[in-house]
Amino acid sequence: MSRSGSHSHRVRWWCLIVAVVAVWVQQVEGVWPLPQQLHQSADRDCLSPQRFSFTYGRDSAAQTGCSVLDAAFKRYFSIIFPDFTTLSENVLQYMWSEPQPFVVSVSVKTRGCDGYPDEDSDESYTLSVSEGQAVLRSVSVWGALRGLESLMLVINSTEIVDFPRFAFRGLLLDTSRHYLPLYAILKTLDAMAYSKLNVFHWHIVDDPSFPYQSRTFPDLSNKGAFHPFTHIYTQSDVIRVIEHARMRGIRVVPEFDSPGHTQSWGKGQPGLLTPCYKGSVPSGSFGPVDPTVDTTYKFMASLLKEVKFVFPDSYVHLGGDEVSFACWQSNPNVRKFMEKMGFGKDFTKLESFYMESIMNMTAALNKTSIVWQDVFDYHERPRSKYVVEVWKQGCYLCKMRRVTKAGLKVILAAPFYLDLPIPTHSWARYYNVRPLAFRGTDEQKKLVIGGEVAMWGEYVDATNLSPRLWPRACAAAERLWSNEEKTLNADLAFPRLKEFRCELLRRGIQAEPLFVGHCRHEYDGL
Amino acid sequence: MSRSGSHSHRVRWWCLIVAVVAVWVQQVEGVWPLPQQLHQSADRDCLSPQRFSFTYGRDSAAQTGCSVLDAAFKRYFSIIFPDFTTLSENVLQYMWSEPQPFVVSVSVKTRGCDGYPDEDSDESYTLSVSEGQAVLRSVSVWGALRGLESLMLVINSTEIVDFPRFAFRGLLLDTSRHYLPLYAILKTLDAMAYSKLNVFHWHIVDDPSFPYQSRTFPDLSNKGAFHPFTHIYTQSDVIRVIEHARMRGIRVVPEFDSPGHTQSWGKGQPGLLTPCYKGSVPSGSFGPVDPTVDTTYKFMASLLKEVKFVFPDSYVHLGGDEVSFACWQSNPNVRKFMEKMGFGKDFTKLESFYMESIMNMTAALNKTSIVWQDVFDYHERPRSKYVVEVWKQGCYLCKMRRVTKAGLKVILAAPFYLDLPIPTHSWARYYNVRPLAFRGTDEQKKLVIGGEVAMWGEYVDATNLSPRLWPRACAAAERLWSNEEKTLNADLAFPRLKEFRCELLRRGIQAEPLFVGHCRHEYDGL
Repeated sequence: MSRSGSHSHRVRWWCLIVAVVAVWVQQVEGVWPLPQQLHQSADRDCLSPQRFSFTYGRDSAAQTGCSVLDAAFKRYFSIIFPDFTTLSENVLQYMWSEPQPFVVSVSVKTRGCDGYPDEDSDESYTLSVSEGQAVLRSVSVWGALRGLESLMLVINSTEIVDFPRFAFRGLLLDTSRHYLPLYAILKTLDAMAYSKLNVFHWHIVDDPSFPYQSRTFPDLSNKGAFHPFTHIYTQSDVIRVIEHARMRGIRVVPEFDSPGHTQSWGKGQPGLLTPCYKGSVPSGSFGPVDPTVDTTYKFMASLLKEVKFVFPDSYVHLGGDEVSFACWQSNPNVRKFMEKMGFGKDFTKLESFYMESIMNMTAALNKTSIVWQDVFDYHERPRSKYVVEVWKQGCYLCKMRRVTKAGLKVILAAPFYLDLPIPTHSWARYYNVRPLAFRGTDEQKKLVIGGEVAMWGEYVDATNLSPRLWPRACAAAERLWSNEEKTLNADLAFPRLKEFRCELLRRGIQAEPLFVGHCRHEYDGL
Repeated sequence: MSRSGSHSHRVRWWCLIVAVVAVWVQQVEGVWPLPQQLHQSADRDCLSPQRFSFTYGRDSAAQTGCSVLDAAFKRYFSIIFPDFTTLSENVLQYMWSEPQPFVVSVSVKTRGCDGYPDEDSDESYTLSVSEGQAVLRSVSVWGALRGLESLMLVINSTEIVDFPRFAFRGLLLDTSRHYLPLYAILKTLDAMAYSKLNVFHWHIVDDPSFPYQSRTFPDLSNKGAFHPFTHIYTQSDVIRVIEHARMRGIRVVPEFDSPGHTQSWGKGQPGLLTPCYKGSVPSGSFGPVDPTVDTTYKFMASLLKEVKFVFPDSYVHLGGDEVSFACWQSNPNVRKFMEKMGFGKDFTKLESFYMESIMNMTAALNKTSIVWQDVFDYHERPRSKYVVEVWKQGCYLCKMRRVTKAGLKVILAAPFYLDLPIPTHSWARYYNVRPLAFRGTDEQKKLVIGGEVAMWGEYVDATNLSPRLWPRACAAAERLWSNEEKTLNADLAFPRLKEFRCELLRRGIQAEPLFVGHCRHEYDGL
């Protein structure tokens, strides 16, 4: 029989195969987080890997060779057609016989393919999907990434106009209380991109360990890491994290928390921490960074200079939280210094003095400082501009009000602490957060630049990180991206989130279940 | 230079390499669960994979060809020398130059290599480790497995006499509320063996889905599973689970819970469930199994006959929990039956009538029934012998007392519900359970055959099963294996459990952290 003679047979086969390939598309009914404007019809395209293509629009400032988008096309092709490379040639023969073309055309206004996303990045996009094609337009490549992500979830006819509600949509990982292997960080970045989160707040060091391998001060990790070879982040590891993040439109904001939370620093940097005293003799233990000696500021200046060099983002987190004053108080040199500076017995002044000093260093390096709210609490009339991160439980909205009243930018983390294993179905608890529900002027509201999911490491490492983060962090992600008016009802959001969680599973993210049920593709341990 | 001329050089190399291979041994300081008697010295052997061997003692009833122990030798060799097959020949050359022999001699009194562990299995063993050798003696192959597990953790000079406190040390998985892929079950069995847990209670079906593929009633899974091909356990899957368990000395007790918790059964077995009524007409919804019609008992007899055929264990769990009487009450046929039987308005009598009937079927099949405590609660003077599983919160010890007073065997699950994500450091909560701390005679205490960790599936599937189980289930495992007097203090147990958790990680079990810190081998996602 001639090839053309078996045509109808082949077409039937092909439809079956396309149906299999395309079936996931039909299961994903919604987009998470919800776009600002979304109009959908029921029309659907069957997609064939042979005739599916990404292309740059003729008027696009970015064209082939644009690292960010070329890599995104590669990634998303595999997400749409996960089995393409494993399908047998026989099957593909049949698929070739009657393919439907589908072209995704991407146009961006400004190129910027080799840059980094920053606080002013425009993440807006429009997406128009109709028969045989999708047209994605954005100002920047970062907006194009967000649009591609939405496209994955809506292959049916759709019109989307979309932009984020907040510019700062962060996620904190703590790599000091437990070391997180590189793959765990990269996987988290993947899932952040799927959820349109855009800032990785890397709480890289703290009391228990100092895994950052500093080129200026190698002893910090040599002596302060859990292990000097296996439990560290080398310079190339850090570069890999930053590049992986950049490709996904994610900023990397490192935190070098001081003057407290620095026990591990002391091991590799003798003289940095304050010696605590018992009566008139040193007790042998150490407290926060010693803010009274020049060597401290020289060290911090060198470290921050390195940080500026290694981390391209314009923000750096300086910590400043939970400083215990007992050790400072016990130390006669510190007391002498307090007297000299006229601080009396108010150690918050000493902490402020220290923080102002290192914030000035950061400013001299053209970086914006983020600090935990404690720094603001000590002095509500700041001399310099910094970004405040609100983390304390209780009336966090009161704090947002005060911080914005003082004219400072603010990030809300307090209601997004996900490290404690509250029952999973509590995702609605994060969903129901209203970051702007405080009394204040429009100017004040504009100072709320976003929010952040915090995954502290006391009880979390690579074994339980993913299921504890996902899909609960997605609830925060929608709150920070979408229009609050359109996403007030957690019950309405539930089926979309359930679907999105299954999609995360399909992409290899170990996202835990919301309730009884199943996903077509269950987690397969990879 | 001649080979012998470079001898000292080679020896030095070899020591280095052996140190690397043996280093894990030096980290593991304790055994979990704690053996009944343990004497250790600080002497340690360096182990070389070339000169390490397992052998059967000359007086052993089991010799080469014993499936259970041959397979165990293979498994444990890889656990001791995980990198052996990947070491280069060059390295092995050096290791060959000066190896220390180490022989593990295993002797069992009775063969039984092809049987299954059961309620009367003798799991005791003695282990004597001295320079260059270990001698492991046990009555049964199951005891030898427990001893090999202890051996993994004590390569230094050690004398152990050991036996379990309770014969029944169970772990329940729920594969109905979420489907658990086969690998997740097998992995759980691995970790159970590491913790010396010995009964896998397979809560295989329930309301949400019926994943067990019955050969007698294939429609049960065809219509009642989440998906009839991907979300089922085929007969060969079940055989694989049972064999994997047998090789590790673990019993598989299936639960076919009825008359409640059977919504999914109704889909593939029309007429089985009670039609609920609204006034005088059927409402369209269904309640528990209909206990008033002969077809129900014929069906259950066929199903239980299949269960006997498929599952070798002498126990079968018949459920009997949480039966709602509202539907029965609404149904006129059920009310008529109640009248005929003289039950009045007491539906607990109807439930008891049903449970007695199916327990009689089970007895006729030479199986022992386990039921949830509800069955006992309804009729504290049981006509037949069955095993009661206490699961309700509140004063579970009061219930243990009453059940044993009635002369029934009892299993304690109530304080071991691990499915709710209570903070991890709450492991001590499970550790501090005292299963025999009720007033009663020695005879009563002997009726407490053990306890069981329960991992229900509402919020648990393959994504979060392991970190939620381990290491918290280990706390229960020690409580059920070890001498309570010697393991009263959770603070003392903490460092041993921390170590054991690291050992679980090293073996690929995704066990979550107990607190800040690190393991040499962090979870690597495999």
